[in-house]
Amino acid sequence: MSDASKLNAVLDRIDADFDNSLERLFALLRIKSISADPAFAGDCKAAADHLAKDISSIGFAADVRPTRGHPAIVAKSNGGGARPRVLFYGHYDVQPVDPLDLWHRPPFEPVVTDHADGRKIIVARGAEDDKGQLMTFVEACRAWKHATGALPLDVTLLIEGEEEIGSKNFVPFLEENKHELAADYALVCDTGMWDPNTPAITTALRGLVYEEIKIKAASRDLHSGVFGGGAQNPIRVLTRILGGLFDDNNRITIPGFYDGVKDLPPDILAQWKKLNLSAETFLKPIGLSIPAGEKDRLLIEQISSRPTCDVNGIVGGYIGEGSKTVIPAQASAKVSFRLVEGQDPAKIRKAFRDYVSAQIPGDCKVEFGDHSSAPAIALDWNMKPLAAAKQALTDEWGREALLIGSGASIPIVADFKKTLGLDSLLVGFGLDDDNIHSPNEKYDLKSYHKGIRSWARILAALAELPR
Amino acid sequence: MSDASKLNAVLDRIDADFDNSLERLFALLRIKSISADPAFAGDCKAAADHLAKDISSIGFAADVRPTRGHPAIVAKSNGGGARPRVLFYGHYDVQPVDPLDLWHRPPFEPVVTDHADGRKIIVARGAEDDKGQLMTFVEACRAWKHATGALPLDVTLLIEGEEEIGSKNFVPFLEENKHELAADYALVCDTGMWDPNTPAITTALRGLVYEEIKIKAASRDLHSGVFGGGAQNPIRVLTRILGGLFDDNNRITIPGFYDGVKDLPPDILAQWKKLNLSAETFLKPIGLSIPAGEKDRLLIEQISSRPTCDVNGIVGGYIGEGSKTVIPAQASAKVSFRLVEGQDPAKIRKAFRDYVSAQIPGDCKVEFGDHSSAPAIALDWNMKPLAAAKQALTDEWGREALLIGSGASIPIVADFKKTLGLDSLLVGFGLDDDNIHSPNEKYDLKSYHKGIRSWARILAALAELPR
Repeated sequence: MSDASKLNAVLDRIDADFDNSLERLFALLRIKSISADPAFAGDCKAAADHLAKDISSIGFAADVRPTRGHPAIVAKSNGGGARPRVLFYGHYDVQPVDPLDLWHRPPFEPVVTDHADGRKIIVARGAEDDKGQLMTFVEACRAWKHATGALPLDVTLLIEGEEEIGSKNFVPFLEENKHELAADYALVCDTGMWDPNTPAITTALRGLVYEEIKIKAASRDLHSGVFGGGAQNPIRVLTRILGGLFDDNNRITIPGFYDGVKDLPPDILAQWKKLNLSAETFLKPIGLSIPAGEKDRLLIEQISSRPTCDVNGIVGGYIGEGSKTVIPAQASAKVSFRLVEGQDPAKIRKAFRDYVSAQIPGDCKVEFGDHSSAPAIALDWNMKPLAAAKQALTDEWGREALLIGSGASIPIVADFKKTLGLDSLLVGFGLDDDNIHSPNEKYDLKSYHKGIRSWARILAALAELPR
Repeated sequence: MSDASKLNAVLDRIDADFDNSLERLFALLRIKSISADPAFAGDCKAAADHLAKDISSIGFAADVRPTRGHPAIVAKSNGGGARPRVLFYGHYDVQPVDPLDLWHRPPFEPVVTDHADGRKIIVARGAEDDKGQLMTFVEACRAWKHATGALPLDVTLLIEGEEEIGSKNFVPFLEENKHELAADYALVCDTGMWDPNTPAITTALRGLVYEEIKIKAASRDLHSGVFGGGAQNPIRVLTRILGGLFDDNNRITIPGFYDGVKDLPPDILAQWKKLNLSAETFLKPIGLSIPAGEKDRLLIEQISSRPTCDVNGIVGGYIGEGSKTVIPAQASAKVSFRLVEGQDPAKIRKAFRDYVSAQIPGDCKVEFGDHSSAPAIALDWNMKPLAAAKQALTDEWGREALLIGSGASIPIVADFKKTLGLDSLLVGFGLDDDNIHSPNEKYDLKSYHKGIRSWARILAALAELPR
């Protein structure tokens, strides 16, 4: 078979086998692999075992490997060493599902249903992030193997179980296994498209610093009638600190926060202006209308090239039904920062902690917790596989694939560079309305199907590159 | 028997029967009558039934009466109409028990144990507020009946089940039954002593406005990587609003908040200065050291004669273990104000809502909930029963009883005046360290024992007053 006819056979096989591809994804989605909650540790292990068994069935030598946290999977195709080897990365762990009462269906009982606008969608926790995405690649490999007897190049699959909690135990695992994980470059499927019809390759990612702060005041909860007015209230301290994080122009007020942040090169800014991302397009579908970022920046800058701060959670005092006149002993918040090139996570963390500590009254205490820390990443826009993948995506979708920056953070990409010396090619099929990390997470059926076909084409294109 | 020997017989009976008094209190404390949580409605009914049965056993005609909420108890002694009739008020409902993990023992399994400083204490939810307090009065009546065959004056017991949730259904009940509830004045046992050895009568109470605010931004939870920087975060809006409630001098910034608030009369201020309430005395036992109220006011003013604001609860986003990079769709807070004489609850509520609404971004919404509203109360320092009760308390405790203002709110006192035309005499045996509304609520065993004896004396003293 010619290379072209091989690829056609693979694409035909993908179409013919799609119902089974879907059923295999469903089997994975049914496993409650929530990494953040220790109660689901057994489910995380079950997901790893399930995936390793499935991957073994298509000819990979697949192992479930212990880490100091949830296990990882390493699976290698039997390459001779002459062909390029790519390291594919995905994660089987998912976000918690609360608030559960906002899900229209149980989050671990996947279904295909109709979106409000008629698109067919797969609904479940992990449908997109990242089980659906990683299965696009696994299914592409399966089709290559079935239709042609072999993969067109050598592949190492590396699938972790702690991406949603900061990969703390996975990074040491990379270091300990770096020789076995050697490859020419990495493929990562955890990003999105520009819109439902336009594929994209992500070439810049924001970094992340995620802090937890707990403010402690009195040694016990107090009655606000007896102590109100005299005793400090930690919610008052906390809201004063968090409420002061932004100025009237929506700039973050932490001293030094913007140090090192560069403006976009004029040519990129001009390109982005042409994309004309409007509040109507981006915010209206989520019920908003006013861009909330720095007032002197384009919306597309606010969400992709500018650093941000969000309070991701806050709790203190009585939060049940009705009323309770309590002054709580403590209050806490989870605060995260998306970083851009030029910002040092360690410096940002210190600047935030200094900013908070300076505002703690003399008789209160603050405790900090560190949930994750990763720098922003700018990928090499000129790496050879990028052009090949861009053409493959363009062929599949019938529209030119875009090179975009993403507001999200995929810290592992920096670790691949640092630990394994690998550049990463970031291709994914998520959409802004996928509700990842939210109730009713979904993945377009079209994303899943054409995602598999896209990877089949990309593998073929990469196989043709010189090593 | 002379009046003096009758009283001595009653006091002897109280001492001899105290173990049984304690066991009767324990039986009431074991009932989980949490009025705020609908799951405990059956327990509230059980507490009312239990109390009515007990009160009937000492000669009252006691009924459990339905209201639109939890039932109330009305119990009347068989007076001839010639003697004074007092209306005694208490409540059988208790606060929720969360956070449950901070209790050293299950909250509805009362015990007598040793306080850190050696005082004997009764520990349970409701031990003080208000089951322990109301039982001091019931047990005093029981002892009078047992030792002398009759009460020294006529008594109507009125015990409600919704005090902790604002008495919304109890106030209409008062109105509907006002003829039956006619009396010369009211006795209320829901306040405290000055310190563990010094009894007090409370002659001023702060009012209460308790609001809930919910801020809604996007139509669903969002991923902070995809939307962070562009989409408004309701926690950011909420913390900015709440964080701005106080200025650098700890004054509340809501426009008009202090309108109508008067300074203390110079003679009262002079008396209060002499009491010399220090941060060391008042704040150190709860682990604090810096008075948190208006900087130009005495601590005793901050906690009793000045209006205050406390955020009693706040919640938004992810509050579980670990991290989640979510921008929540909504965030909410419970905010209460203690009011003083001269402040109109309706105006304060409106001023707060205006203050909040003015700060809501154009694409967000705010919803308000009203949990309670009551004006401050200044009682008549010259009412005749007050002098009699003060002497009775002084006789029992061996120290002159003080007339004090309380920072807490007992809205029903205003309703007694307005609906029934009754002045109230507020006597109670609580202490600042009773942990009411908190984990490990307690009531000093001495408060319970001498509280019963105090009421026995007060009833005797009131009986001697001309009608």
